[in-house]
Amino acid sequence: MSVLDYSAYPFTREQLVQNVKQRMSEKRFKHVLGVEKACIELAQRYGVNPTKASIAGLTHDYAKECSDKVFEQTIRNYNLDPQLLKWGNNILHGVVGQYIVKEELHLVDEAILHAIEVHTTGDKQMTTLEKVLYVADYIEENRVFPGVTKARELAKQDLDETVCFETKQTLSFLVEKKSPIYPKTLVTYNYYVALKQ
Amino acid sequence: MSVLDYSAYPFTREQLVQNVKQRMSEKRFKHVLGVEKACIELAQRYGVNPTKASIAGLTHDYAKECSDKVFEQTIRNYNLDPQLLKWGNNILHGVVGQYIVKEELHLVDEAILHAIEVHTTGDKQMTTLEKVLYVADYIEENRVFPGVTKARELAKQDLDETVCFETKQTLSFLVEKKSPIYPKTLVTYNYYVALKQ
Repeated sequence: MSVLDYSAYPFTREQLVQNVKQRMSEKRFKHVLGVEKACIELAQRYGVNPTKASIAGLTHDYAKECSDKVFEQTIRNYNLDPQLLKWGNNILHGVVGQYIVKEELHLVDEAILHAIEVHTTGDKQMTTLEKVLYVADYIEENRVFPGVTKARELAKQDLDETVCFETKQTLSFLVEKKSPIYPKTLVTYNYYVALKQ
Repeated sequence: MSVLDYSAYPFTREQLVQNVKQRMSEKRFKHVLGVEKACIELAQRYGVNPTKASIAGLTHDYAKECSDKVFEQTIRNYNLDPQLLKWGNNILHGVVGQYIVKEELHLVDEAILHAIEVHTTGDKQMTTLEKVLYVADYIEENRVFPGVTKARELAKQDLDETVCFETKQTLSFLVEKKSPIYPKTLVTYNYYVALKQ
C-alpha cells in the first residue's frame, strides 16, 4: 500500500495490524481489514490523508471486545459520564474506546481519535475523515444487509448523502428492533437530513 | 356527559367547545371532539379525572392554526428558547401552545397545560393524564392509518404499552419521511421502550 506513510506514528502498519489482530475474533479482524480498505478508497476519492484513514480503519474496533470492567475503569480514569455504561458495547467501544486506543497504542492524533469516538453514532458537522470512517464501517466488502449496495453506490457520488442514508437506515433498524437510540445518533440524523434536503 | 364537572373552571364545556370551534377548520374541530371522547374513555379506564381529560382533549390543538408570528411573540413574552421556531408547527402548537391556552382561556391547571405541552412529543415519566391525551390524539375515531386498529386494541389493555407502540410508529414514520425528529420524542422512545422490555 504505497500511498501510506506511517513514519509519523509510533508503529508500522504491520505492527498495528498484528496488535489489532490479537484483540479480536477472526471474523471481526476480517471486517477491520475491510473497513481499512474502504477507508483508503474513500480517503482518496474525497481528499483525506490515506494514512490517517488506514489507521482509523484499523483501530476503530480496537476496544470492541473489551469487557464492561475495562470500560468502567476507563470511564473512571478519564472522568467520563458514568451514564455511558447503560448504552452498552455498541456505544462504549467508540466513545470510550478512543481512550483505550490512545493509551495502549500511544496514538495521539486527535483527528483519528475523534473519528473512532463517533464512528457508530456519527455527529453533526463531521470532518471528512470522520465521515469516511463512519461510511466505510457501513459499506466495507464483507457487509451484507438490505441497502448496502445502494450505500456503496452513493458513497462513490456524495459522502454527505451517504452519511444521511446510513443514519436513516440505522435509525429505522434500531426502531424496528425496539433498541435504545443514543441521542447523538439523532443529532447526526437531524443535521444530515436537513443538509441534504 | 354527566361524568364531567366543569364547576372549578372559568368556562362551561359549551363555552369551551364554542371557543375552540372558532379557532380551527371544521375537519380539525371534528378531530378535537374525537380526541375529547377518547380522552374521557381512557380517563375512565385508567382512573384519571374525566373533566381534566375532557379539557385536555378539547384544548390540545387550540394553537394548531396560530401563525408563526403568534408563536414568535409568545416565545418572546415567556422567554422561551427561540430555537423552538425551527421545529415548526408540529412542535410549537404543543410546547408553545400551552401558553396561548393559558392566556386566552384563563386555564391555570398545570396538569392539563403540561399534557398539552407534551401531547405530540411525549416525555419520560408522563402522568396518566399526559399519557391519556398522547394516546387519545393517536387513536381517536377519525384517525385512519396503518396500525391504528392495533393501537386502539392495545389502549384497552395497557397504556404504557400503547405509548411505546405509538412512539415507535411515530419515529418510524418520521424517519421514513426524512423529517426532523425533536429530541424529546427520542427521550420518550428510549424511556418507554426500556419500560416495556
